[in-house]
Amino acid sequence: MAALNIGVDIGGTNLRVGVVRELEVIYQQRFPADFSAICKQHAPEAALQEILRITSAALLQAKAAYPDVQHVGIGFPGFIDPKSGQVLQSPNLPGLRKVDLAAALSRLIELPVRLENDALVAALGEYKLLETPPRSMVYIGLGTGVGGGLIHAGLPYPGDHGIAMEIGHLIVEANGRQCGCGNKGCLEQYAAAPGVIASYAELSGQHLVAHDIAARADADDEAALAAYALAGRYLGQAIAHIVKTVDPELVLVGGGMSQAWRHIAPELETQLDNDLVPVLRNKITMAVSESGDLAGIIGAAYLS
Amino acid sequence: MAALNIGVDIGGTNLRVGVVRELEVIYQQRFPADFSAICKQHAPEAALQEILRITSAALLQAKAAYPDVQHVGIGFPGFIDPKSGQVLQSPNLPGLRKVDLAAALSRLIELPVRLENDALVAALGEYKLLETPPRSMVYIGLGTGVGGGLIHAGLPYPGDHGIAMEIGHLIVEANGRQCGCGNKGCLEQYAAAPGVIASYAELSGQHLVAHDIAARADADDEAALAAYALAGRYLGQAIAHIVKTVDPELVLVGGGMSQAWRHIAPELETQLDNDLVPVLRNKITMAVSESGDLAGIIGAAYLS
Repeated sequence: MAALNIGVDIGGTNLRVGVVRELEVIYQQRFPADFSAICKQHAPEAALQEILRITSAALLQAKAAYPDVQHVGIGFPGFIDPKSGQVLQSPNLPGLRKVDLAAALSRLIELPVRLENDALVAALGEYKLLETPPRSMVYIGLGTGVGGGLIHAGLPYPGDHGIAMEIGHLIVEANGRQCGCGNKGCLEQYAAAPGVIASYAELSGQHLVAHDIAARADADDEAALAAYALAGRYLGQAIAHIVKTVDPELVLVGGGMSQAWRHIAPELETQLDNDLVPVLRNKITMAVSESGDLAGIIGAAYLS
Repeated sequence: MAALNIGVDIGGTNLRVGVVRELEVIYQQRFPADFSAICKQHAPEAALQEILRITSAALLQAKAAYPDVQHVGIGFPGFIDPKSGQVLQSPNLPGLRKVDLAAALSRLIELPVRLENDALVAALGEYKLLETPPRSMVYIGLGTGVGGGLIHAGLPYPGDHGIAMEIGHLIVEANGRQCGCGNKGCLEQYAAAPGVIASYAELSGQHLVAHDIAARADADDEAALAAYALAGRYLGQAIAHIVKTVDPELVLVGGGMSQAWRHIAPELETQLDNDLVPVLRNKITMAVSESGDLAGIIGAAYLS
């Protein structure tokens, strides 16, 4: 019988736990879990205990339903040290620094646990779900931020400090918009949902949620189209940098904002074509993910 | 007895052939060979035959001196298809397109031959010569162009189309100086020797060779110092992109222009520190190569 593994996706307000056999999610539970709020409300040690309590309870429930599960993989929103497996830092969960979440969970649930950066885990899941796996693939997740992951020779490429493919923080505009990381002009200030919201507000004077801006773009609203075009332009610039650096076969775009792909793509393709070295033009395949929201769970289950 | 291999470094006007045992070059010959001129003077097929004639003669001489050599590695100035091993394109040797130079040479000299991009081969040589090999390393060669190579888990990382680490063509200045690749504002237009020469000419009105600009910088000439500072600024920008993308443990700089490192480094470090995500600051080791000109031959000998 094929191996059964648990994959966990830690989102902004939810914890999703799945049991995966081959590429199929055969069990899935969603638990409300706002770890960011927990980190703000509690001292670091108490926050850690609360996160461990919620996560281990969810995992034990899955283990009770499927006692044969062999190991647990977790996509975690933070930087993971490739040597120690520790969480080095999590921008959204400020209390967690240099903690070995995987080891602590492993003791509580008595299963091997591996933690990896959530964008890298999503990349692995997307890669596993491809019909024809490329030699290497860069995944770009467009959501409330811009995350990325590189899969090389079938394996996640975390980098030597667990920080490879920090795509959202490629600087695309010198002295551009202020970013939460401390720098200015980072890609995610233009190409993630809050960036599009900011662009639309600049262009129209109106502050709308991303969903409404997408609807206006669908209706040919000029400012909405321009906001997505700006996202596309900077994405094209950043993808050109990435392609010249790691030269992947496939660049796959996913995440909530990829639903507005048709508004982003034209300007992105123009800029990418403009910036690529001629010998690279037309060699890179770009595609939009069609995996829905299962890539995170599936990728996590395939960590080993 | 340790394996004996031949390493070949194809330069602008020379062909250097070495026999390497472990990390030692025990035989070395230099042959005048201007392949670029040959490609300009002859039709593609005749140029190829001439290149094969010169290279195989040099290799047979090394094989006669060391009949126990096992294989030949060649650092070649062009893009090599990782799947077929063919030369896809060489900007400086325009006649050579989609030719299997390695297979043709292998038939002529009756030894296995592998060809790889010269900057990637130099990176491998530099990596092999390190006392403590890092998990991964990016090598940047500053010379008449800016080349680069990534070594990951001890292996060269050519990318899926043989074009990874095209560092010289990262665009660092929108609508900047015209580059030979067809784009504008590429790093090598500022950070390679011709770029520094151009910067110095812009700043001082004088057209000097790189060596003389370095001497003037040593004597605190303001325009010379500013030309190197500009190279440093753009290198810092590009290295920040690279670090955020592949997150290496070590960035090693070599090539002829690295001799002016003390004029390049201050602005480079300021810009890099400015552009890195805070969590990455002070985690990347930068160093200047001290291997002289042997890395190309040694790296080539270690291709297998």
